[in-house]
Amino acid sequence: MRESFYLTMSILLFILNSAFAAPLTMSELLASSQDSDWREADADNLLYMTLSTGQVVIELAPLFAPRLTANIRSLARERYWDDLSINRAQDNYVVQWGDPSAEDPKSKKPTKVPETLAAEFERALDKKVPFTVLKDGDIYAPEVGFSDGFPAARDPRGKKMWLTHCYGAVGAGRNTPAESGPGMELFAVIGHAPRHLDRNISLVGRVIDGMEHLSSLPRGTGPLGFYEKPAQRITIKSIRLGRDVPGKDRGRWQVLRTDTPLFQKVIESRRHRPEEWFHHRAGRIELCNVPIPVRKVTEK
Amino acid sequence: MRESFYLTMSILLFILNSAFAAPLTMSELLASSQDSDWREADADNLLYMTLSTGQVVIELAPLFAPRLTANIRSLARERYWDDLSINRAQDNYVVQWGDPSAEDPKSKKPTKVPETLAAEFERALDKKVPFTVLKDGDIYAPEVGFSDGFPAARDPRGKKMWLTHCYGAVGAGRNTPAESGPGMELFAVIGHAPRHLDRNISLVGRVIDGMEHLSSLPRGTGPLGFYEKPAQRITIKSIRLGRDVPGKDRGRWQVLRTDTPLFQKVIESRRHRPEEWFHHRAGRIELCNVPIPVRKVTEK
Repeated sequence: MRESFYLTMSILLFILNSAFAAPLTMSELLASSQDSDWREADADNLLYMTLSTGQVVIELAPLFAPRLTANIRSLARERYWDDLSINRAQDNYVVQWGDPSAEDPKSKKPTKVPETLAAEFERALDKKVPFTVLKDGDIYAPEVGFSDGFPAARDPRGKKMWLTHCYGAVGAGRNTPAESGPGMELFAVIGHAPRHLDRNISLVGRVIDGMEHLSSLPRGTGPLGFYEKPAQRITIKSIRLGRDVPGKDRGRWQVLRTDTPLFQKVIESRRHRPEEWFHHRAGRIELCNVPIPVRKVTEK
Repeated sequence: MRESFYLTMSILLFILNSAFAAPLTMSELLASSQDSDWREADADNLLYMTLSTGQVVIELAPLFAPRLTANIRSLARERYWDDLSINRAQDNYVVQWGDPSAEDPKSKKPTKVPETLAAEFERALDKKVPFTVLKDGDIYAPEVGFSDGFPAARDPRGKKMWLTHCYGAVGAGRNTPAESGPGMELFAVIGHAPRHLDRNISLVGRVIDGMEHLSSLPRGTGPLGFYEKPAQRITIKSIRLGRDVPGKDRGRWQVLRTDTPLFQKVIESRRHRPEEWFHHRAGRIELCNVPIPVRKVTEK
């Protein structure tokens, strides 16, 4: 009888404690993560861009842009971008890099990739492509969420899915024709998510490290933020595919899995920020405000 | 009879032409604007921050933060910020300025303002405060729109309204107590709108010119993006109230009125981008992606 009373009380206390315990912050949740909560980025999907100020690491998303990411790998392998430059930095919009004299017939041409490529603005909705719905809704798309670490959107009626232009998204610049962006000219979003570009640009991935080397660049003063003088352009020392970087320099990057209970807890912790500093908890979150944590694995 | 036929045809042609004419782009709409589509910023609501790299102009919003904007005017008048610094630049978040040794009892104290001030996170909903609803909806607030050139939100049931944390929003940094942000410490949003800060921070205005001098600053490498070494901080030469700047240096700034048919056309033109480059037109727009144009009046 007494034992059963204690058992009941213990269960009751456990329930009360679970219900009223302060929810965990994102850092506490990450500290509690298991190795299985992370996936390691494939070295075939990593691009290392080296600038004089540091390194930018981009993860490619071949599930959304198979042709373009193949082209980009090929361009990196033939060292196409080495000694080319960042030519544009438009405030609250994008930083863009490639060959500033690409329009000149005498400019450096890649040998192994086509000059145009059918656009990959969106892809067929396919249940084999992972997608975790964000229940908060969206202004631009019928449904948004996360596909294996990339913010993305779906149109279940139109049976399409696509990557979204959140901060740090990387895409292929193009001229007016849809097929004019084969990947030599790339850009990264450095401002408030320009979601009106969704389905107008083939997104190829996102920056997972070193974003500040792009976002803090001086803004160009020409139209669209292009640098007016060649000397203002920022030289790209090199862009390499992860696979081609020697092991000791390559590093290993892990992205928090977005199809796990832990990731749901991260989202919930960002909807209702538990930190004492917050006086008003939003209770909702918008797609591009959901952090997708990345960690560099330090070899022991 | 014949006259009536021609009249009917003319009317019909006019209607057809209006219906099928290419919609105008934002620049075409602005080029068509009348003087009455603009309101001139009051010199009592302008703050000029001078850095070695250029000038940042902030428009204050006394309708939303009457006590704080009064405090800020007073601080500018006693030249509180002169020779203080920008101490924090956190990527995709905020740039923050003030006295880096504010916690030190021996630090520079303003003489005319209180050390704490009741927060102005939100204000009573009042029909006398202008508000133009954006019909596209919002993830965070029951209703969003524009109040005299400032992106804002309302809760008609809770009878409150507040400014929103869009790119360029300026607010008063605070410690954990709500009243701990009396305006000596200010910040500007330099990344994707951190809307979870809405109703947690007293917003006081927005940057209307020179934003790039803040957004392109090197990011701090300390916690929260604080600069780790004093030498990394960016010195503020001065912050002045527009009213106190001599006429020839003051300039005149005009903000597009947000309660006009022209502004509705601007929004519509950004929902359905008419530029030939766009292959997919979103048809919708999110609050912080609506541009609120500003022009500097050049005296003839």
